[in-house]
Amino acid sequence: MLHRERSVPPEYIYPFDEWKMIERRFDSRFLAQSETIFATANGYMGMRGNFEEGAPVAYNGTYINAFHETWPIVYGEEAHGFAKTGQTMLNVTDCRLIKLYVDDEPLYLPTANLLQYERTLNMQAGTLERELVWEMASGKRVSVKSRRLVSFQHRHLAAVQYEVTLLNAKAPVVLSSEMAYAYHMDDAEQDPRKTRGFKQRPLSPSGGSAKDCRILLSHKTRNSKMTLACGVDHVIETACNYSHTLSRTDDSGKSVFAVEAQPGQPIRLTKFISYHTSRSAPPEALRERTDRTLDRAMRDGFSQLLEEQRAFLDDFWSRSDVEIEGDAAVQQYIRWNLFQLCQASARAEGAGIGARGLTGDTYEGHYFWDTEIYVLPFLIYTEPRIARNLLKFRHSMLEKARQRAREVGHPGALFPWRTINGDEASAYYAAGTAQYHINADIMYALKKYAEITGDVEFLHREGAEMLVETARLWVDLGFFSSRADGRFRIHAVTGPDEYATVVNDNTYTNLMARENLRFAVRTVETLRKDHPERFTELVDKTQLEVAEVAIWKRAAEQMYIPFDEKLGIHPQDDTFLEREVWDFENTPHDKYPLLLHFHPLVLYRHQVIKQADVALAMFLLGNEFTPEQKKRNFDYYDPLTTGDSSLSVSIQSIIAFEIGYIEKAREYARYAAMMDLADVGGNVKHGAHIASIGGTWLAIVFGFAGLRDYDGQLSFNPRLPKRIGHVRFCLTVRGQRLQIEMDRSQVRYSLQDGKELTIRHAEQELRVTLDAPAVVAVDDKPGAKVRSRESSARRR
Amino acid sequence: MLHRERSVPPEYIYPFDEWKMIERRFDSRFLAQSETIFATANGYMGMRGNFEEGAPVAYNGTYINAFHETWPIVYGEEAHGFAKTGQTMLNVTDCRLIKLYVDDEPLYLPTANLLQYERTLNMQAGTLERELVWEMASGKRVSVKSRRLVSFQHRHLAAVQYEVTLLNAKAPVVLSSEMAYAYHMDDAEQDPRKTRGFKQRPLSPSGGSAKDCRILLSHKTRNSKMTLACGVDHVIETACNYSHTLSRTDDSGKSVFAVEAQPGQPIRLTKFISYHTSRSAPPEALRERTDRTLDRAMRDGFSQLLEEQRAFLDDFWSRSDVEIEGDAAVQQYIRWNLFQLCQASARAEGAGIGARGLTGDTYEGHYFWDTEIYVLPFLIYTEPRIARNLLKFRHSMLEKARQRAREVGHPGALFPWRTINGDEASAYYAAGTAQYHINADIMYALKKYAEITGDVEFLHREGAEMLVETARLWVDLGFFSSRADGRFRIHAVTGPDEYATVVNDNTYTNLMARENLRFAVRTVETLRKDHPERFTELVDKTQLEVAEVAIWKRAAEQMYIPFDEKLGIHPQDDTFLEREVWDFENTPHDKYPLLLHFHPLVLYRHQVIKQADVALAMFLLGNEFTPEQKKRNFDYYDPLTTGDSSLSVSIQSIIAFEIGYIEKAREYARYAAMMDLADVGGNVKHGAHIASIGGTWLAIVFGFAGLRDYDGQLSFNPRLPKRIGHVRFCLTVRGQRLQIEMDRSQVRYSLQDGKELTIRHAEQELRVTLDAPAVVAVDDKPGAKVRSRESSARRR
Repeated sequence: MLHRERSVPPEYIYPFDEWKMIERRFDSRFLAQSETIFATANGYMGMRGNFEEGAPVAYNGTYINAFHETWPIVYGEEAHGFAKTGQTMLNVTDCRLIKLYVDDEPLYLPTANLLQYERTLNMQAGTLERELVWEMASGKRVSVKSRRLVSFQHRHLAAVQYEVTLLNAKAPVVLSSEMAYAYHMDDAEQDPRKTRGFKQRPLSPSGGSAKDCRILLSHKTRNSKMTLACGVDHVIETACNYSHTLSRTDDSGKSVFAVEAQPGQPIRLTKFISYHTSRSAPPEALRERTDRTLDRAMRDGFSQLLEEQRAFLDDFWSRSDVEIEGDAAVQQYIRWNLFQLCQASARAEGAGIGARGLTGDTYEGHYFWDTEIYVLPFLIYTEPRIARNLLKFRHSMLEKARQRAREVGHPGALFPWRTINGDEASAYYAAGTAQYHINADIMYALKKYAEITGDVEFLHREGAEMLVETARLWVDLGFFSSRADGRFRIHAVTGPDEYATVVNDNTYTNLMARENLRFAVRTVETLRKDHPERFTELVDKTQLEVAEVAIWKRAAEQMYIPFDEKLGIHPQDDTFLEREVWDFENTPHDKYPLLLHFHPLVLYRHQVIKQADVALAMFLLGNEFTPEQKKRNFDYYDPLTTGDSSLSVSIQSIIAFEIGYIEKAREYARYAAMMDLADVGGNVKHGAHIASIGGTWLAIVFGFAGLRDYDGQLSFNPRLPKRIGHVRFCLTVRGQRLQIEMDRSQVRYSLQDGKELTIRHAEQELRVTLDAPAVVAVDDKPGAKVRSRESSARRR
Repeated sequence: MLHRERSVPPEYIYPFDEWKMIERRFDSRFLAQSETIFATANGYMGMRGNFEEGAPVAYNGTYINAFHETWPIVYGEEAHGFAKTGQTMLNVTDCRLIKLYVDDEPLYLPTANLLQYERTLNMQAGTLERELVWEMASGKRVSVKSRRLVSFQHRHLAAVQYEVTLLNAKAPVVLSSEMAYAYHMDDAEQDPRKTRGFKQRPLSPSGGSAKDCRILLSHKTRNSKMTLACGVDHVIETACNYSHTLSRTDDSGKSVFAVEAQPGQPIRLTKFISYHTSRSAPPEALRERTDRTLDRAMRDGFSQLLEEQRAFLDDFWSRSDVEIEGDAAVQQYIRWNLFQLCQASARAEGAGIGARGLTGDTYEGHYFWDTEIYVLPFLIYTEPRIARNLLKFRHSMLEKARQRAREVGHPGALFPWRTINGDEASAYYAAGTAQYHINADIMYALKKYAEITGDVEFLHREGAEMLVETARLWVDLGFFSSRADGRFRIHAVTGPDEYATVVNDNTYTNLMARENLRFAVRTVETLRKDHPERFTELVDKTQLEVAEVAIWKRAAEQMYIPFDEKLGIHPQDDTFLEREVWDFENTPHDKYPLLLHFHPLVLYRHQVIKQADVALAMFLLGNEFTPEQKKRNFDYYDPLTTGDSSLSVSIQSIIAFEIGYIEKAREYARYAAMMDLADVGGNVKHGAHIASIGGTWLAIVFGFAGLRDYDGQLSFNPRLPKRIGHVRFCLTVRGQRLQIEMDRSQVRYSLQDGKELTIRHAEQELRVTLDAPAVVAVDDKPGAKVRSRESSARRR
């Protein structure tokens, strides 16, 4: 059940286009959210869709993934084992600025008389473009075209091209290309999800240079001891006369071009921008690296950048696109969602994916389970290399997870609920450290990765090590309860739903822990039997004793899964059903999200759900539930679920599809896809909801197409809702590319790449080869199950 | 079960004396704790037992009750309804200082060659005295005698008399009497119970004056906008020649007497000290008030102060003393405990009683439920006027409690878990705001106060108003559960035991809430029937509707009280018994208190108890339990109880007495009495544990003597443990003073004041009149129940 109104923007905001997000009119009401929607990023760096002119601006933002400052977390009341080190991804030096003055008048959109205006995020080209014609009070008309990109091909490079043409007169034109580090102090707005301001500026200048058209600036953080270098270089192309000046301070640089503009003569300024940080190079080498990146960009030029960008995205779309016919807007929404996944992950390399990608710094730019549960499935099925990187990144933090387990009082490893550098940064343990399920979530993603990619190498090295340490944690955390016939119980944990914290036997957690334990047992036993060298390595790294594995096995076997016989449902936790049901009827819309209006204790004592919890378990481990249980669980929990978290509707959609509530499923899927574009949460201005974005892909692939992949076996059970005519997408499975194409009459499974794949469609087993696609006829009735009929592949 | 070692000090520390705490040798190991043990206070102001010379010093402390600074509570992660305003009782300007220089050598105890040394807290005189003889390297011997007091009679006055005599030579002597405000910055020690340092000095100077021998200083707080004025004046008496200089800065003052000391000629400096704050007078009047207090003190002189102090204490002891024979140390310990109760409460007037009284600023000087549950019984039975003041003080914060209820989402009133100014100051709601039982605790104390004193007036005005608002909160907080046959359940609350937080149906809370509701119903119904005018007043103040009372009644009737049929015990909360039992065997002594060594989640998921919870319910509402239940409950919970809180052993002692575990009871009572003197918690240096101190009195009166006073009916069931020969104490009941005198052969109940009182002794009803005491013979066997024999009173 959704308790939010979505706000539908006027038609000049995001009019329908298959490949573009367009804004046809400047409208200050949408300024803040457009900065998120039009953000450009490559997973390494991100720039919000702020205007080149620097104003108007709502939230100016430039971020380098994982470039962060640390700070001591202050507690009103401290307790043992509380997380100590806060981490905040920093808003760094803004290098995009190109300020335009004509006749000394600045271009300022809110007051400018704009004869034309269009801004476009081109998702095929990977560029943000803007074209406008400005008519000045003097009657002079000025055409301004800009185009910028954050390069996917060149991780450290971005570029802006800014072209000004006086259309009907001549005038002095000044193009002031600037870079500026400006620190914004703490504001008063109190939203626990927002990022924290610092009392002191987190970045201090550490030198720079300015020569010809190039400026370099360098900054250092105070506590985390990280260094950032950024540089810009310029090319100006014009037939008009111009002069150039260059200046620099500690925190800023200016390259000013004063042009005697002639009518009809374009003035084109190209600005190359590069960022390097001490995460990837020694601090003293950063300026040299920046120089080198800029040298190459100057040599290759802007058009080559554009070509490479297009080529990169062609490849991305060929692997990742989801084509949809029938719901026009949905196609655009989905592409924007997929494009965000690309922008958040493409060049993360050695870093994670923040809860808002690189479009905002909400949640301090921290990495959560969102990555593993909501984003990794997409990457595993479309770009396994990146999925591997992200799992490797988790593995790189294993030592800190071991330390954290010690701090909290456990053997093994406890991955941080939120982090940048591997240290737990959650300052509210009830909805932080208590979410032990993070361990199982990561191992779940590992399992899926290994099964779908077949990357046994990674599983047997990094994977096995993480499995051992997480399994250790689970058996220490829980206990064999004498009061419950020796069942293994896990107490005082928080499940995915943060409106119920520190509970006993959260169904999701217990199921996921069992899966974690089982997979650890299986993996260790496989190594011991079949890969003695790997096993020896593992024992070396973990001091594993064989007796431990027997305990994991017993804990998994004896795992207590709450079930209420009377209602025939799985209680979200052992006492969830004891609680009073929330009074939804008397809760007005403006009281959502509830967390901003009610004390946690009030939420905790009611049956009210922030986000899919049992529903998520039914998705991830659907094979542990009967169809009847799924239906009863969904029927029970759906009305209690507020969707106050953006991580919810996509999962609710998938389960609704599965149990046949097709229209509800479609509605939820739409919500997921529109989460940011229709600003469902009211906070898109602070960044794109990457989990919901990943969830949108999940809703299509696991919802519409009904993919299930328990233990690596793919099965489909597609159900097209009304209005959706045709869906096509690809999945990469063990190096082979499978295309799924569904319409009202049939589903077509074809291999684009590879040799042969055996999958299931509903009850049928299908063998798909490169030559022989499998085609299954389906009932035309919207949402109906596929007819059980021999597939064309089989019939041949 | 106690998991702590107590440290027994050497014999020169607190050697046995019935009325004095003595220190026979300066020992720096005991410096910090002696500052607490030798603290002097009157409930309005308190001075730690720091030496006049200013050094050596561990924690210098001067406190004015309720004089505090506020600060915004910072949360790592904020949530709705979290307490916003921290409050810290300030360590104010130190006015005690008298530095001694002989031949320009300062007296510094750690290095001085002391031929004699004795420091004494005289609990009959109400003074802190010290006598020493200092032999200098030159062979000169100096006698130094000092005596000081914080006046009980004159709320704003303290005084020090410092007498120096050169014994065998002449020498220049300088007595530098100083006052100084020194702010100590935040130290690194991380103990959540300690007070917070400020980043900026909380007190800013706001003027002063210096004239003749008088210095006045004034300071203001930054945020709470409170003003403090303090002043000193001096009298010097000596036959020697001397000169005097006076000086003042913003933060300090000095009155220096340079004396040409002659052998055998005493030099006696008397210093009067006064503090006034804007809590009791307009800021601009404070200096005048201070002048007036000093004028009076100068006129009356030190000896009159001493006389008045003695008179005040004679009266106190006549009402409050507990005489014990048989356990020599225990008599001294008990007197010290009683004296602390006097020092913490005597002149509180318009303020509360902090968790450490005025002996330290641990817990920021906040007021907790300690006052109502641990201290008020003593005051109700010995000085009801002060008990009334404290309840009136709670009532004065009712409006803030109403606001707080709104913030947390309830109607009615929610008293703050910890506060100085009425605002909730608990920054950790799980062991703060969630302790809703504070409401019932206060109402419990109100009920006892009304029943024992017969003060119907207070009950019908302030009391009834608080009863209505607290009852409203309870019925909103809980709900009639359809899953539990319509029983009234209270979820997501924390009981007294803070090692289990945010639980469902805490037995203590539910029982106490029921008592609260019943008492509210009864009081409102009485008013409606018998006091229509009062009832109208009440309705005016609370907008009470008659229908509300019916719901309170139903909630009380339907209150769910967890009970485990199998074990025959009351679970501490609804799922307490589901938890894993703490592994006490493998927890070394140095891991206690557990809260300093384990993450809260680890504690919360185990059966391990910080402090009496079900046991406390069995004491406060013993009539709700059968004797068998009490025994089974005690047997179950006692081994799980760490005593990590100082609020525990006294209660465990009382229940142990009741169920006949006499030696265990005695041991626990000793622990309570010795809590501070033997430094059981290892933190006496930070202040005296006022709750445990109150608990010591409870352990004697409700333990040894077996007093129970359900609904105001007094009954006794005395049981003397081995080694205790004789116990005598008085109780003031409805204006009459009842003396109880127990020895091995009989118990004697006599009326010291009043006409007639009917009490019970075990199964017997006894009528005691002024002329006719009741004497009951008892079995001589230690701990045996009284023999059921006609009382001498009856036989007459």
